[in-house]
Amino acid sequence: MKILVLNAGSSSVKYSLFDMSDRSVLIAGIIERIGEDAASHSYSLAQNGRIHDEINCRNHQQALQLLFETLAVCRVLTDRHELAGIGHRVVHGGEHFRQPALIDAQVMQRIAEVIPLAPLHNPANLLGIEEAIRQMDDTPQVAVFDTAFHQTLPDYAYRYALPEHLYADHGVRRYGFHGTSHRYVAEQAAHYLGKPLSEINLITLHLGNGASVTAIQNGRSIDTSMGMTPLEGLMMGSRCGDIDPAIHFYLSRTLNLSNEAIETLLNKESGCKGVCGENDMRAIHRMAETGDDLARLALAMYAYRIKKYIGAYFAVLGRVDALVFTGGIGENDAWLREHVCLEMQIFGIALDQERNQKPVRPCDSISPANSGVAILVIAANEELEIAIQAQQCLEEPRALN
Amino acid sequence: MKILVLNAGSSSVKYSLFDMSDRSVLIAGIIERIGEDAASHSYSLAQNGRIHDEINCRNHQQALQLLFETLAVCRVLTDRHELAGIGHRVVHGGEHFRQPALIDAQVMQRIAEVIPLAPLHNPANLLGIEEAIRQMDDTPQVAVFDTAFHQTLPDYAYRYALPEHLYADHGVRRYGFHGTSHRYVAEQAAHYLGKPLSEINLITLHLGNGASVTAIQNGRSIDTSMGMTPLEGLMMGSRCGDIDPAIHFYLSRTLNLSNEAIETLLNKESGCKGVCGENDMRAIHRMAETGDDLARLALAMYAYRIKKYIGAYFAVLGRVDALVFTGGIGENDAWLREHVCLEMQIFGIALDQERNQKPVRPCDSISPANSGVAILVIAANEELEIAIQAQQCLEEPRALN
Ligand SMILES: Nc1ncnc2c1ncn2[C@@H]1O[C@H](COP(=O)(O)OP(=O)(O)O)[C@@H](O)[C@H]1O
Ligand SMILES: Nc1ncnc2c1ncn2[C@@H]1O[C@H](COP(=O)(O)OP(=O)(O)O)[C@@H](O)[C@H]1O
Repeated sequence: MKILVLNAGSSSVKYSLFDMSDRSVLIAGIIERIGEDAASHSYSLAQNGRIHDEINCRNHQQALQLLFETLAVCRVLTDRHELAGIGHRVVHGGEHFRQPALIDAQVMQRIAEVIPLAPLHNPANLLGIEEAIRQMDDTPQVAVFDTAFHQTLPDYAYRYALPEHLYADHGVRRYGFHGTSHRYVAEQAAHYLGKPLSEINLITLHLGNGASVTAIQNGRSIDTSMGMTPLEGLMMGSRCGDIDPAIHFYLSRTLNLSNEAIETLLNKESGCKGVCGENDMRAIHRMAETGDDLARLALAMYAYRIKKYIGAYFAVLGRVDALVFTGGIGENDAWLREHVCLEMQIFGIALDQERNQKPVRPCDSISPANSGVAILVIAANEELEIAIQAQQCLEEPRALN
Repeated sequence: MKILVLNAGSSSVKYSLFDMSDRSVLIAGIIERIGEDAASHSYSLAQNGRIHDEINCRNHQQALQLLFETLAVCRVLTDRHELAGIGHRVVHGGEHFRQPALIDAQVMQRIAEVIPLAPLHNPANLLGIEEAIRQMDDTPQVAVFDTAFHQTLPDYAYRYALPEHLYADHGVRRYGFHGTSHRYVAEQAAHYLGKPLSEINLITLHLGNGASVTAIQNGRSIDTSMGMTPLEGLMMGSRCGDIDPAIHFYLSRTLNLSNEAIETLLNKESGCKGVCGENDMRAIHRMAETGDDLARLALAMYAYRIKKYIGAYFAVLGRVDALVFTGGIGENDAWLREHVCLEMQIFGIALDQERNQKPVRPCDSISPANSGVAILVIAANEELEIAIQAQQCLEEPRALN
């Protein structure tokens, strides 16, 4: 059984084709700068190096055409009927979706309905779905939502202290994102710890370009740092995370910035990039090593804000079985993990310095064996989780959740 | 030695006259609805009931005239020279002021300079100062800043993940407020615990109409929940506290609200009032008792968000000697204190249910005697602290801080 996972952004389409019999990746690639002059297509086949093509690609229709042609040419899909389904990553599912959904007109309409909540993401996800349906109309398609895992938050955690009607009439609330990733690493952690997921409490840290942290109680998300949108919470590569809500008024009143300019500033010019001019964590470390004080500050802030969320989620969870690091930074940045865990004895958090330097992929513990709280490093694999969930949705739609 | 404490708001002036020999209040009052048709003046003298007058009061000049006349008429100040000084509460001191300042032209200019950071507060504070100087030009006047106590925050705690130039050129950073109150209760707590302030770690919760929480390490503020303005942090009577910064864009794009309308909404129509329609905590409890689900939600959110800050500040402090409740809600709301402390054993927090019902004013412990973390209830007294600090500033300007 083969499942294709699609992640359509406004100017890119990422894809992975899985053979579900052994969960191996047959091909994975990305078509980028769609609609621009210098579009490109990079992909790699199992046991082959990466191929990079300069291409002409005006829109998502052409991108998907190219993708399906590539699957045929590379012989990873010789017959369309080999494809059991397509799993689409959809950023925002609003309150409708607590689990993946087999896509039909109603599901598409609901994804469209929450566009006002996710104007930067859902339109592109929907475009990807529409094109995939157009080109592969007899393949079942499944929407897997970044928000679904967090639909178990209690009301006192998901509500903002804003006028009731903004929630009741407009759905202004915390939704949380990265749900597929948090769920995936939670399952891996449970497996590693040898306990049922439904009996463990975790704090999962997904630290990539976007970053979020989730409090998981008995396998269910009960709080998470991203909010109505992915802008809230931790400091990220170029997103500000938590700020004083009155800063907007200062920026508009004193600096005369339009709301559009502020939106760009908070999403693309803030976070690590805002503080030290760089959003790639490896580059920030190099800058800090040469004595750059703003890079030092960015690292200190990044770690500090994670520590505060860990403390907050200890208060929420009471008991924590493991702290889980994932994402490009979570998996690779030993310095950061060390500084997050520093002086956290009060929580029973202790690090094995040596194991922290080189955790074994895809899942390893970096805490001493007798530690109260296990500290795990787990390789993120959102694509695989989307494929698994799409498969489950196709096989037994009600078994999920 | 007598010291007058003045707190000038945009349409009100609050005042207290202290006899510093025994720190007693000779008179305390408030002139309200200045500039409106139904202005009023309420005041009480030591050992007398409250007097309420309907008055005519067009502006702050008339308000201060009335105030000084009242001091004379009530014979609490028979000669102007009896007044050693006036202590003004100033909300925002920017980065200039780490301690109280004897007011001169330069100090006034600096208070004016940070008006863009505190447009709702500093102009009125300045008006009060100007009028007091005009009417009492040979009385020394001292500015006591709400932000000063928090100037000890480390950079990684006070910086936002925003472009560097917003900090460097415009002072966009966390300042924190309620500093006078946090400092006052910290001193009281140290005294109660019989330890020097410079050796204790505290989490102080000022819960009134505004609400904030501060992490105090060795007597110094190292983090606090309010930010560049008093809008950030905990859920308050009518202020939203922490929200997703992208909610602004939703409100402006989808609901077509202007920035002015959003500012009013977040400051005056949110918090408890937004969630359940009521901002007085006593009324919210009554509503919840009659089964009002939104009142139940407001209480649950209010307590939950405090718990998260407590957890976060445990992560910041490592060791905590005491948790301190102050402010109208902190001092009086036993239900809230109980729910904040519920299931917080991991932090060594335990409550003595009985003592929690009726803590003895002005300072009492409500934790079991052997508890790892003392839980204290301390009566707020910002006015007295302003008077004390003004007096210290007059007597030995350099001894502060
Ligand atoms: N060895 C490393 N040390 C520190 N950071 C790393 C390392 N490798 C990758 N990263 C960081 O991971 C981040 C990207 O994470 P990733 O999860 O790939 O992003 P995305 O959220 O886009 O999926 C970048 O900031 C990158 O610098
Ligand atoms: N017995 C009580 N129980 C619960 N809340 C109380 C009680 N008494 C006063 N409060 C609350 O205290 C809040 C006002 O606190 P206060 O510190 O006086 O305000 P401010 O911040 O304006 O100085 C109000 O919400 C009020 O309902």
